[in-house]
Amino acid sequence: MAIKNILYIMCDQLRFDHLGCAGHPFLKTPNIDRLAARGVRFDHAYVQSGICGPSRMSAYTGRYVSTHGATHNRVPLSVGEVTLGWHLREAGRRLMLAGKTHMLPDARGMKRLALDGQNELAVLLREGWFDLIDRHDGHHAEPDSAYADWLRAQGYQSKDPWTDYVIAVTDEKGRTQNGWKMRHARLPARVREEHSETAYTTDRALEFITAQGNEPWVLHLSYVKPHWPYIAPAPYHALYSPEECLPVRRHAAERDANAHPVLREFMREEVAESFQQDECIATVRPAYQGLIAQLDHHLGRLWDVLEKLGRFDDTLILFTSDHGDYLGDHWLGEKELFHDCIQRVPFILYDPDPAADATRGRVETRFVEAIDALPTMLDALALDPAEHLLEGRSLLALTRGQDIVWRDAVFSELDWTFRGARRRLGLPTGQHHAWMVRTTQWKYVHWTDGLRPMLFDLAKDPEEFHDLGADPAYEAVRESMRERLLAWFTGLKRRTTLTWAEAEFRTDRHKSAGVFYGEW
Amino acid sequence: MAIKNILYIMCDQLRFDHLGCAGHPFLKTPNIDRLAARGVRFDHAYVQSGICGPSRMSAYTGRYVSTHGATHNRVPLSVGEVTLGWHLREAGRRLMLAGKTHMLPDARGMKRLALDGQNELAVLLREGWFDLIDRHDGHHAEPDSAYADWLRAQGYQSKDPWTDYVIAVTDEKGRTQNGWKMRHARLPARVREEHSETAYTTDRALEFITAQGNEPWVLHLSYVKPHWPYIAPAPYHALYSPEECLPVRRHAAERDANAHPVLREFMREEVAESFQQDECIATVRPAYQGLIAQLDHHLGRLWDVLEKLGRFDDTLILFTSDHGDYLGDHWLGEKELFHDCIQRVPFILYDPDPAADATRGRVETRFVEAIDALPTMLDALALDPAEHLLEGRSLLALTRGQDIVWRDAVFSELDWTFRGARRRLGLPTGQHHAWMVRTTQWKYVHWTDGLRPMLFDLAKDPEEFHDLGADPAYEAVRESMRERLLAWFTGLKRRTTLTWAEAEFRTDRHKSAGVFYGEW
Repeated sequence: MAIKNILYIMCDQLRFDHLGCAGHPFLKTPNIDRLAARGVRFDHAYVQSGICGPSRMSAYTGRYVSTHGATHNRVPLSVGEVTLGWHLREAGRRLMLAGKTHMLPDARGMKRLALDGQNELAVLLREGWFDLIDRHDGHHAEPDSAYADWLRAQGYQSKDPWTDYVIAVTDEKGRTQNGWKMRHARLPARVREEHSETAYTTDRALEFITAQGNEPWVLHLSYVKPHWPYIAPAPYHALYSPEECLPVRRHAAERDANAHPVLREFMREEVAESFQQDECIATVRPAYQGLIAQLDHHLGRLWDVLEKLGRFDDTLILFTSDHGDYLGDHWLGEKELFHDCIQRVPFILYDPDPAADATRGRVETRFVEAIDALPTMLDALALDPAEHLLEGRSLLALTRGQDIVWRDAVFSELDWTFRGARRRLGLPTGQHHAWMVRTTQWKYVHWTDGLRPMLFDLAKDPEEFHDLGADPAYEAVRESMRERLLAWFTGLKRRTTLTWAEAEFRTDRHKSAGVFYGEW
Repeated sequence: MAIKNILYIMCDQLRFDHLGCAGHPFLKTPNIDRLAARGVRFDHAYVQSGICGPSRMSAYTGRYVSTHGATHNRVPLSVGEVTLGWHLREAGRRLMLAGKTHMLPDARGMKRLALDGQNELAVLLREGWFDLIDRHDGHHAEPDSAYADWLRAQGYQSKDPWTDYVIAVTDEKGRTQNGWKMRHARLPARVREEHSETAYTTDRALEFITAQGNEPWVLHLSYVKPHWPYIAPAPYHALYSPEECLPVRRHAAERDANAHPVLREFMREEVAESFQQDECIATVRPAYQGLIAQLDHHLGRLWDVLEKLGRFDDTLILFTSDHGDYLGDHWLGEKELFHDCIQRVPFILYDPDPAADATRGRVETRFVEAIDALPTMLDALALDPAEHLLEGRSLLALTRGQDIVWRDAVFSELDWTFRGARRRLGLPTGQHHAWMVRTTQWKYVHWTDGLRPMLFDLAKDPEEFHDLGADPAYEAVRESMRERLLAWFTGLKRRTTLTWAEAEFRTDRHKSAGVFYGEW
C-alpha cells in the first residue's frame, strides 16, 4: 500500500540519550521503543542549530540556517523562503499543525509585498504555510490561545491559566509558586495530567486523525515538552529520583584558564549558574524525565488509535526533537552550543513500505541531519523533490536498505548575537556566528570575530571535555575541518528561483532564445 | 548644498582599460575623463560576477551573488530580496530607469504569494522596484518595446526595427546583413546615429532630468552598449583602425596540456573560437571602441545639461559598467571567467560635497566592489544604511579623504551550470560554481566539482597567463586564499528579516518578553 499519510512528531528540547531504546538506564519509554522496534532508529541524528527557532526553520524548509537566514529565536523566516507546507500545497495537499512551530511572520517582508492583510494567504504566510488544528508554542504565556480557553472551560479560572496552573505548583505551605523557578520542579503542576500540554496536544491530534477517516493527511504533531518550564503533572513529577537520572557530565578542564571565551561566557549566564548547583540538577532532571515519561504515555495512546484505524499500513511516522538540553552538563544550562547533548537528537523513522521490512528494529549509525526530514516526506508521498531548494536527503534509501554513498559529516550553526555573552565579550551588534563540523572522530567549531576554534577528538574524548582548538599539535586536523566547512559553504543552495530541470533546459540555449552572440 | 539627486550610470560590457583616462593609447573619451577630473576614479573596481544578470542583481541589491541567489542571466531575483528601488521607496523616493536592468520576475515566488496580478505592486515587483522611464535590455529583439515604437515613428518600418536597422548593416553589394555576425562589425548600422540605442537612452534621461526641474530624483541611466551585437552607427563604426586598438593579450601557456579544464572548455565555445581568429579581433575591436566613443559623446551632452541646470551642485554621479569583454584576450570571447578584463570595471564617482574637493581628479587604487554603489547612494542621501542587508561599503569616506581601514581583497563568483562547457565536462545539471578572491598580489579561483583551483601571481604575471593553481610550490598561498574565502563566506549577510538595531534591542531580553528560564 502506498504511503498516504505522514505523522511528523517533534518534541521540544528532548535529548538523544533520554530514551529507553537509546540506553537510558532508568527512564522507561516503552512506546517510543515500540516505534523504534517497528522502524529505524537513527542514532547519529543532528539538528542544524541547537535552539528552537533556527532548528525548526531548518526542519520546515529542509535548508541549513545559513541558507534560510532565520538564525535565532524570534528572527522571522523570510517570506522568500519555501516551507514544507507550501511544497504540500503545490501538490494539492495541506500541512496540519497541532502544537508548536516557533514560526514568526516576516512582518517587514510582508509589508513590502503588501501581504499584511487579513486574508487566508496572509494567515498562512504568518504561520509558514501550516494549517492550524491548534497552535501553542508553550514557552511563554499565551492567555488568548485555544488552549487557554479550553483550560478555562475545564474549570481553571484565570486570565492566564498556563502561568497559574500548567506551570504553577502548590508548595508545602499551600502557597502557589511560579513554575519558572526551577526549585519548584520537584512539585506537581497545578493542572491535572489530562489537562496538561502534552495530553491536550495529543487529544487534538487524535481528534484530527480520527475525523480524517480514510482521507489522506500530513500532520505535524509538535509537543512543547520536555522544554522548560520543567513542571510535570502528577504522577510524572515524582516518577524518578535524582539517583535514577544520568550522571552529570562536566570536567574541571572545561573551566580552566584556557577555556574558549564563548564557552566561558555562556557559563556565566544565569541558567548556567543555576545548573552549576547540584541541587538544581537533582531537582530538574527527575522532572525532565517525568515529562518524557508522560510524553511516552501519550504516544502509546496515539499508536493504539493508529493501529485500530489501520494507519500503520499507510502512514510514515517520524519521531524527533528540535535539540537537547544541557541540564548541567558541561557546567551549562539550556542549549545553543555544540555539545552532543544539544545537537544530537532522537530520530526514529517508521516506513510502512514492505521494502523497509528488512530494516525494522535496526539502529542506524550513519549521520542524519534534521533537514533530511522534509525530503524524506516528499519522497514518501512521491512528490517533486525540489532538489534546487532542499539541502537534506531522503532517508528512504536507508530504511529500505539500499546500497548508497552517504554523508560522513553533519553541520550545525549558531547565531549568538542575541546572548549577553556577546556583550560581555565587548562585541557590538551585527552578526556573530559559529559553525560546527562533526565527523565520526572530530567535532570542530568555527567562530567569527577572530575567536579561536574549538576541536574535540571524539574517539579519545567522547564526552567533549578537552578542547584541542588551541593545541598546535592539531593544526592539520583543524585545517582539514576548515576545508570541509569551505566545501559545505560552496555547496549551499542559493539559486532558489529556478529548478534544476529548468537549469538543464536553459543550458547552452541562447540561440533558441534569439540571442546569436559569438558567430563570425 | 546637500546631495539631492543621484545619477547612476551603467554601461554594459565596458572594459576597465577602454577609457582615455585609464590609459588607452588611442581611444578618446574626453567626457568620461571630464567626470574623472571632477571626481575620483577608482582604478581597482570589481564586479561581483562577470556576467550581466548576477552582476546587476549584486549592484541593485548591494549583496554578493551567493547571498541574493540570482546566479546567472535569466535566473530571477527572489521576491524575498530587497533592491535599491525598495530602499528608496521606504524613504518616500523612487528609482527611475532609462535603459537596461536584466531584471527578471520571480514568477514562481510571485505566484506562491499571489502577487502575479496586474496591479502597480506586481509591475514594480516584476521590475525589481524600478519605475520605468523606458526599459530596453538591448541584447535581443524587443519588437513591442517603446524603443521599437519610437524607431517606427522615425520611419524605420519593420516589425522588429532593432534587428532590421539598429544591429543590421548594408554590405558592399547593397544587401542587408545581420549584425549578429561579427564579420559585419566593420560596417555602419542601418540606423542613424541619433536613432541608435545610446542616443535614444540619453534623450530619455535628458527629458526626465529636465522635466524634474528642482524636484529631487534618482536615475539609473543604464546603457546597453558597448555590449554585442557590435554594430556602431556612422561615423563611430570607422573611428578607429585595428592598429589603434589594444594588443590582444594571450599566451601559448594558456592552451597547453595543463590548462584548467573549465578554461579549456570555455575556449571551445563558439564565441571563443571566433575570437581566436585575428580577423575577428581586428573587426570587432574598432567597432567596440567606436561604441565607447559614441557613449562618451552622449555623456558630454548629459554633462552639459547637468551643468546648465546646476545639477553638478546637488547630484552624486557614478559611472561604471557591469563587467568587461574578452575580445580575444586569453583566447576567449564574451565574459564570465575571472580575468581582470572581465571582472575589473570603470568606476568614477563624482561627489558634489565640498568635503570631496580635496580628492577631485584623484585616482584611487584601493579596492572597490560593485556592491559599494548602493550603500554609497544611501549614504549620500542620508538614508538608513540597512547594514543587516548590504554587503558593500559607502565610498564617501574615500571621496572625502577620511582615514579609515579598508578592504584588501575583492570577491566575485560564477555559476557556470548554464554553459555548454559544463556538459562537455560530463557534469549533470545542478549547481556548478566558482569564487574568485583577488588581493593586490594574488588572484585565486575556487571551483566546485572537485576541479583544481586557479592561481595567478599578479606581481610577476599581471597579464594572468601562468596559472599556478596546480603548482605544488604555491600550496601555502592557495591555502591562505581558501582561508580568506572561508572568512568571506562566514561574513555574508543571511539574517535579512531583522535589523541590527533590532538585534541589539533583543539581546538578553527574554525576561522583558515574559520568559524567565534559568531562575533557580
